[in-house]
Amino acid sequence: MDFHRLYTEKKTRIEDTLKTLIDSYRSYPPTIFKAMEYSLFAGGKRLRPVLLISAHQLVGGNLEESLAMACGMEMIHTYSLIHDDLPAMDDDALRRGIPTNHKVFGEGLAILAGDALLNLAFEVILKNALKYPNNLENHVKAGFIIATAAGVEGMIGVQVVDLEYEGKLPEPDTVEYIHSHKTGALIEASLKAGVVLEGVDEKTEKAISQYGKRLGMAFQITDDILDIKGDISKLGKNLGRDKVKEKATFPAVYGLEKSQNMARELIEQAVDDLNQFGKSADFLREMARFVINRQG
Amino acid sequence: MDFHRLYTEKKTRIEDTLKTLIDSYRSYPPTIFKAMEYSLFAGGKRLRPVLLISAHQLVGGNLEESLAMACGMEMIHTYSLIHDDLPAMDDDALRRGIPTNHKVFGEGLAILAGDALLNLAFEVILKNALKYPNNLENHVKAGFIIATAAGVEGMIGVQVVDLEYEGKLPEPDTVEYIHSHKTGALIEASLKAGVVLEGVDEKTEKAISQYGKRLGMAFQITDDILDIKGDISKLGKNLGRDKVKEKATFPAVYGLEKSQNMARELIEQAVDDLNQFGKSADFLREMARFVINRQG
Repeated sequence: MDFHRLYTEKKTRIEDTLKTLIDSYRSYPPTIFKAMEYSLFAGGKRLRPVLLISAHQLVGGNLEESLAMACGMEMIHTYSLIHDDLPAMDDDALRRGIPTNHKVFGEGLAILAGDALLNLAFEVILKNALKYPNNLENHVKAGFIIATAAGVEGMIGVQVVDLEYEGKLPEPDTVEYIHSHKTGALIEASLKAGVVLEGVDEKTEKAISQYGKRLGMAFQITDDILDIKGDISKLGKNLGRDKVKEKATFPAVYGLEKSQNMARELIEQAVDDLNQFGKSADFLREMARFVINRQG
Repeated sequence: MDFHRLYTEKKTRIEDTLKTLIDSYRSYPPTIFKAMEYSLFAGGKRLRPVLLISAHQLVGGNLEESLAMACGMEMIHTYSLIHDDLPAMDDDALRRGIPTNHKVFGEGLAILAGDALLNLAFEVILKNALKYPNNLENHVKAGFIIATAAGVEGMIGVQVVDLEYEGKLPEPDTVEYIHSHKTGALIEASLKAGVVLEGVDEKTEKAISQYGKRLGMAFQITDDILDIKGDISKLGKNLGRDKVKEKATFPAVYGLEKSQNMARELIEQAVDDLNQFGKSADFLREMARFVINRQG
């Protein structure tokens, strides 16, 4: 299996669908679409939507049915980055190698562009659900999984804790909470939504969830490590921001080497979580390795 | 029919459900819930959820089935107020007689509380939908109507135009666009979602939509008039803010008297839109009169 070719194929499919979706919703006024598209097409890895469609395909799903939901997930991820970068939050000037949304469009429009992307995610998910009347319940279930992960019990909850813990010495428990929920919430939800959309037994859902939890945690630890020793040209954002803001990160608590070992261990376990799926899960196995070996 | 008693009954039912819902989602960390509840329970009119359950009941719906969706609508309305009041947007210090969300919790938490309420609205709508497997399609359709009205084609779109037109001389077309979409979008969507939830013919949906469009426009014109000659103690927000910010309002374009006549005319037409429903629509007829005669 040529992992990188397959990843690029999936990514291209996601990006084409994102473009089609945005065009189909395009309306007055143009400014808000400019701001939304600026961040939505700033060249991310599309990790979450690729995971969603891959999990869906793993259990026999038809790609066409999960693409819109995967794009909804990417819109939620993008909105969270726009709001996270705001002066009142992380106050970041650079993201994916270009100025952050509010630096280009101003704070007011950046807030609204984020709101619009979050809202559009649910418009897209609900509209797509109506195209599948025979599988409507699974669409609503998967949509609910995504909404829960994006909300106070998931991503937003951790953004609050993250904000509150800036400048305080983080306890290991808090760091684990932050890391398991931060990127973890959306990564796990992408995988879970993918399999739930097709309707699977509890054992399968649990295995995919477990894989997602470990993948998400390893991803976040790697993110923190890259913030210390990454390459700014590959990373596309300023380095050392966590330290400046005294963020509660794994390296801050455990040191760099132990954090790296923890990420590697998590990835080995994540690969094992996929045992029941045999060869068809090879893409997700490679994905786990990709997540900690990435440079950006 | 005792309109005010009935209104209070419906309002109380909405507020009780809001409390139950928030409690059922309550999770770590407590700060975000404090910020969400601060604005959610600051004593609004609950106009949109009352309209939603009333439209649902008008076409034979069972109150229990629409309550959660109505609360979702109120969460969306509340999030839009929190974000609208932010320094980067309208920069308001007072709302419903108390300091605005960011004045109490800071900008970062206010942004997140707004995000959380928008997201929670869809969590609540999707979860409630799953309780009605035999009526799932109507729940998804109604949810999509709400999402569309709250998004770029509706409320967010108009917030952008509102922001762009500050300080510019408004043309009548722009003012009409702003007014028909501003509060109009969510008011119309509340009514439409209410009847769609029960499943109605096109003629009924159209009549309710038309009523909603006119009610929403009259509501917004009244809002603008109250901003000029209202009573701050009843209104709970500072007066004259539209003028200071050179907002594109009806009174700014047509003057006070003509605006008042327009609102009155719209309400007469809105009452006529309900002709097909007979006596069962008396509450909504009274509601139309209430909307322009209110003082706060």
